[in-house]
Amino acid sequence: MTDRLAAQFAFLNEADQLKQVMRATTLVDGSRPENSGEHSWHLALYALVLADQAAPGVNINRVIRMLLIHDLVEIDVGDVPIHSQNGTAHASAETLAAEASAADRIFGLLPQDLGRDLRTLWEEFEAAETPDALFAKSLDRIQPVMANLMSGGGTWTTYNVTYDQLETRVGSKIAKGAPSLWDWVREKARPFFN
Amino acid sequence: MTDRLAAQFAFLNEADQLKQVMRATTLVDGSRPENSGEHSWHLALYALVLADQAAPGVNINRVIRMLLIHDLVEIDVGDVPIHSQNGTAHASAETLAAEASAADRIFGLLPQDLGRDLRTLWEEFEAAETPDALFAKSLDRIQPVMANLMSGGGTWTTYNVTYDQLETRVGSKIAKGAPSLWDWVREKARPFFN
Repeated sequence: MTDRLAAQFAFLNEADQLKQVMRATTLVDGSRPENSGEHSWHLALYALVLADQAAPGVNINRVIRMLLIHDLVEIDVGDVPIHSQNGTAHASAETLAAEASAADRIFGLLPQDLGRDLRTLWEEFEAAETPDALFAKSLDRIQPVMANLMSGGGTWTTYNVTYDQLETRVGSKIAKGAPSLWDWVREKARPFFN
Repeated sequence: MTDRLAAQFAFLNEADQLKQVMRATTLVDGSRPENSGEHSWHLALYALVLADQAAPGVNINRVIRMLLIHDLVEIDVGDVPIHSQNGTAHASAETLAAEASAADRIFGLLPQDLGRDLRTLWEEFEAAETPDALFAKSLDRIQPVMANLMSGGGTWTTYNVTYDQLETRVGSKIAKGAPSLWDWVREKARPFFN
């Protein structure tokens, strides 16, 4: 038990570093960049509050768990802003390989059973195929849209994003897991680009 | 639906302010104070990773939900460090009244059904009587102990805390919801006070 607890706390202490990974997106009031730890909290709260927007059969408790761990690999790899990727909105092969190594290291701190479970859950999120992962991904995409809206442009201004790019890079992804949410938020976002 | 989503996002945008509420406790590396948003994320991760330490019958998904919302009232009231309260470790009547008003305002932003559910969950956490709330409270107390241990003293140094005070104010509370966790962490903490 002692060794097991030592491993659990080694992971929890390592996870603390996510609070120092800075994102391109700011807080809602625009006062400073958001870090990936507080972002993960905000997303889990999104899942709790927007559960009625999920497709039938989505397990919100699993979505919350996914969102709590979804960014841990950024401790090693950092955050890659969507609008910074030359418009592809796809991570490079190098980034994917670095994230897999980070997952090996970070989830590897845990007792084997726990590490395997959380690693599997993270891979499900990354694959974005199951209903739970699709809803989690939609929330991960919509929260920065809301921050940009509230703060007067945010990363849309930083990266000179057009409305068409927003639709392609972000909207189409949100719509896969939460179409009615995108319908609602799109109407708020569109005037910004006129 | 439009009005419902407007209320849900009004709440989520308001919740963003928890990222600007500063705690007395620092990050694990001591580099800066922790904010209550990232603290809430870390605690939810504690619940996920330390679930095997919970008493039989504890519902970890409910514990995670509780921890996601447990500090929202601090948006209005701020954080009250345990070791700053003249050694009583009890909130004053004024603080409790201010927290209840904050809960009225903040959960009141939500659609009525959701606001009522989350308010009830927060009250269960505050009452610290059910097994779920006791485990959640234990995690809320143990995470700062770990930060103080890792950062070389933290709030123990700030407030000149003695080992007996740590036992009374913190250890006895952790032991109510997670006795084997306190047994383990106490042994790590004790040498600090010698």
